[in-house]
Amino acid sequence: MNEIGNIFKNIPDHIPQELFQEIIKAEGLKVERIVSKGHSSPDNDWYDQKENEWVVLLKGAAGLLFEGDEKAVVLRPGDYIHIPSHTKHRVEWTDPKLETVWLAIHYKN
Amino acid sequence: MNEIGNIFKNIPDHIPQELFQEIIKAEGLKVERIVSKGHSSPDNDWYDQKENEWVVLLKGAAGLLFEGDEKAVVLRPGDYIHIPSHTKHRVEWTDPKLETVWLAIHYKN
Repeated sequence: MNEIGNIFKNIPDHIPQELFQEIIKAEGLKVERIVSKGHSSPDNDWYDQKENEWVVLLKGAAGLLFEGDEKAVVLRPGDYIHIPSHTKHRVEWTDPKLETVWLAIHYKN
Repeated sequence: MNEIGNIFKNIPDHIPQELFQEIIKAEGLKVERIVSKGHSSPDNDWYDQKENEWVVLLKGAAGLLFEGDEKAVVLRPGDYIHIPSHTKHRVEWTDPKLETVWLAIHYKN
């Protein structure tokens, strides 16, 4: 009944696209694991989300750009950030050599 | 505005009691960081929670005992487990030498 998973395991060798995997889905809540490897948001493509997001980077590294900012925020293992709903942002880069593992919590107010 | 925190930082040198720190509080949702160092649940004391919990151990190690089980489940970095509401459980042990850092998501159905 109480099965254990590991957030760093079960990652395919090849991830041509970023991997989004749902961990929890409940009323007003979605928790997902995201695995990136050199991926970034398409040019001029911004996330503009209806829900709030709290995201923690657990492995790897990434640059997150917020609209209006000149420089991307660099996230290293353990770093987390709150992204209020409709705060436009994009992933500028992720580590090309190593998997970047994120845990994202999307929630309503 | 987009302040970065780190889940492994800002841990006091001495933690006589387990540290519970709220990260997100919203309707039907509470996310917290827990830091343990050799702590365990008091003898014969069981968590019996109204909400569901999803918990990931990010650093350290711990033994989690579920009511009716003979042996504690051992959690290592990256391990996560779902604990449905009213599933009685207790922390049997945590690493006495190293901080154990947990991220717990408590949520309604």
